[in-house]
Amino acid sequence: MASKIALALHGGCGTLPVDELTAAEWAESRDHIADALRAGWDILRRGGSALDAVEATVVILENSPHFNAGHGAALNAAEQHELDSAIMDGATLGAGAVAGAGRIRNPVKAARALLERGDAIMLIGPSADAFAGSAGLEIVDNSYFTTARRIEMLRRMRAHAASGTSASEGEKHGTVGAVALDRAGHLAAATSTGGYTNKPPGRVGDSPLIGIGTYARDGACAVSCTGMGEYFMRNVAGHEIASQMRLAGRSLKEATHTMVFDTIGKQYGIGAGLCAVDGQGHIEVPFNTVGMYRGFVTADGDCHVGTHAELECRGRWDQ
Amino acid sequence: MASKIALALHGGCGTLPVDELTAAEWAESRDHIADALRAGWDILRRGGSALDAVEATVVILENSPHFNAGHGAALNAAEQHELDSAIMDGATLGAGAVAGAGRIRNPVKAARALLERGDAIMLIGPSADAFAGSAGLEIVDNSYFTTARRIEMLRRMRAHAASGTSASEGEKHGTVGAVALDRAGHLAAATSTGGYTNKPPGRVGDSPLIGIGTYARDGACAVSCTGMGEYFMRNVAGHEIASQMRLAGRSLKEATHTMVFDTIGKQYGIGAGLCAVDGQGHIEVPFNTVGMYRGFVTADGDCHVGTHAELECRGRWDQ
Repeated sequence: MASKIALALHGGCGTLPVDELTAAEWAESRDHIADALRAGWDILRRGGSALDAVEATVVILENSPHFNAGHGAALNAAEQHELDSAIMDGATLGAGAVAGAGRIRNPVKAARALLERGDAIMLIGPSADAFAGSAGLEIVDNSYFTTARRIEMLRRMRAHAASGTSASEGEKHGTVGAVALDRAGHLAAATSTGGYTNKPPGRVGDSPLIGIGTYARDGACAVSCTGMGEYFMRNVAGHEIASQMRLAGRSLKEATHTMVFDTIGKQYGIGAGLCAVDGQGHIEVPFNTVGMYRGFVTADGDCHVGTHAELECRGRWDQ
Repeated sequence: MASKIALALHGGCGTLPVDELTAAEWAESRDHIADALRAGWDILRRGGSALDAVEATVVILENSPHFNAGHGAALNAAEQHELDSAIMDGATLGAGAVAGAGRIRNPVKAARALLERGDAIMLIGPSADAFAGSAGLEIVDNSYFTTARRIEMLRRMRAHAASGTSASEGEKHGTVGAVALDRAGHLAAATSTGGYTNKPPGRVGDSPLIGIGTYARDGACAVSCTGMGEYFMRNVAGHEIASQMRLAGRSLKEATHTMVFDTIGKQYGIGAGLCAVDGQGHIEVPFNTVGMYRGFVTADGDCHVGTHAELECRGRWDQ
């Protein structure tokens, strides 16, 4: 029997305050979320793999300037972009990841190419860029990733650092990710990020780490995390959620909400969100910040998109 | 009530065939294992922390030419050393890690310095080297890590690649690691490696990945892995072992042997080993290869050292 299909994404829990963007800009960011869902959903409903769906979804988010990944990625303290991404196939536990990449237009495609090659799972720095080039992926100058907004964010973060004031979540971080369940019942997850604004050069967060920011395992769940990576790393978040389900019989909702609100919430207050799907097509998108760019299409085909508390219905999509 | 203390280490499951070294060289490698245990044990028996003990133990192994970490690390395909290390405190879940370092004499000290700073957990490449220098750690030329044996291993691996023959485990990989339980009942783990001989530049394995090659959590266990890193990464090995104990009530022996012999053994045949300790001072050092450099001091003070099947008793050490 063919499985239900389901798809969810996040565009980072570092959502800007509502008054930072114009209504037209907010509408465009929601449209880009819907576009990304459409790319993944069309693959799923035609019987394509969850792996192809999460990659296609993340590519759209990487190409949008609204999210902290690919074009529009955060600038580090050296005014450069260092990009991290991972992808994982829940059916085979195959995975690929890049960290500290500087010239790969779509880092998630490099992660996917590593998964397909099946040799090294993780490559870092210029070696990741060189691999992507040899794999035929598009190579760009580091400045391709820069937007006026990210230059402004770096200026603000430096001002906060100089004055000792706190930055908002929206100024600090962001990430994109997607999770999917396909017709064959397989799960997959993918994540891509520029890290947080003004991060130290060379810093790697949870996004490209298998079992932490990115994890998928058939029979349990697929998870992509967003927020302060170090919080997720100490808790091995993705694999902990899957383990709670596999070994302790918890539901996707219990396991994901425990991680975001209880475990990380109690340790650090705020700074965490994620999207997750299980083998029955249940979707969870918890976050403990002011907002999280997010969207999903349920197993019934209902599409929802949101940036702050409220969700906007985008109709019932054909399955 | 003061806890029992216990300490275990591995020097990699890529043990050479017995006839590759002279009897004197094998004796020296066992002595270096005993020296490393002594460094950690002296800290533990004086009431020092598990974190200090695993760091001190790994430093001795990094400084010995017999093991694939620090001096004596494997050469990659570009005839360079790229070093990875991580350390984790089971009491706080604090962690530090470096990957792709090229100039830090003792990478585990850089991982510890990151843990202590409490900001970024993981730094990669030249940024890891720069951080270590700024933290006052000893910086060396990349050639410091090279030994005649590793040049020979690279020659052999290239010959295998050219002729399509298989390399032995001993020619391929190695890693060092330590786990400890201290008087206060806290657990810690540390790992350091040069990766496998002839690895692609930029490849990162499981060693520096929190929850995979290195993991510690009070109430569960501390684990350091050795072998083909990609096997451990797909299985999120360290955290999976701890989760089996925490969430499914398995013993340290059941959880570690399942990972090495059942999970990885069935997926890949061979290529895995680890050392682990739990909160009661139980020690496990399973491996599915021909041998594994290893040593441990039990909660009763009994010290054992070995490289292949047999263990050599080194007496009962004062607690």
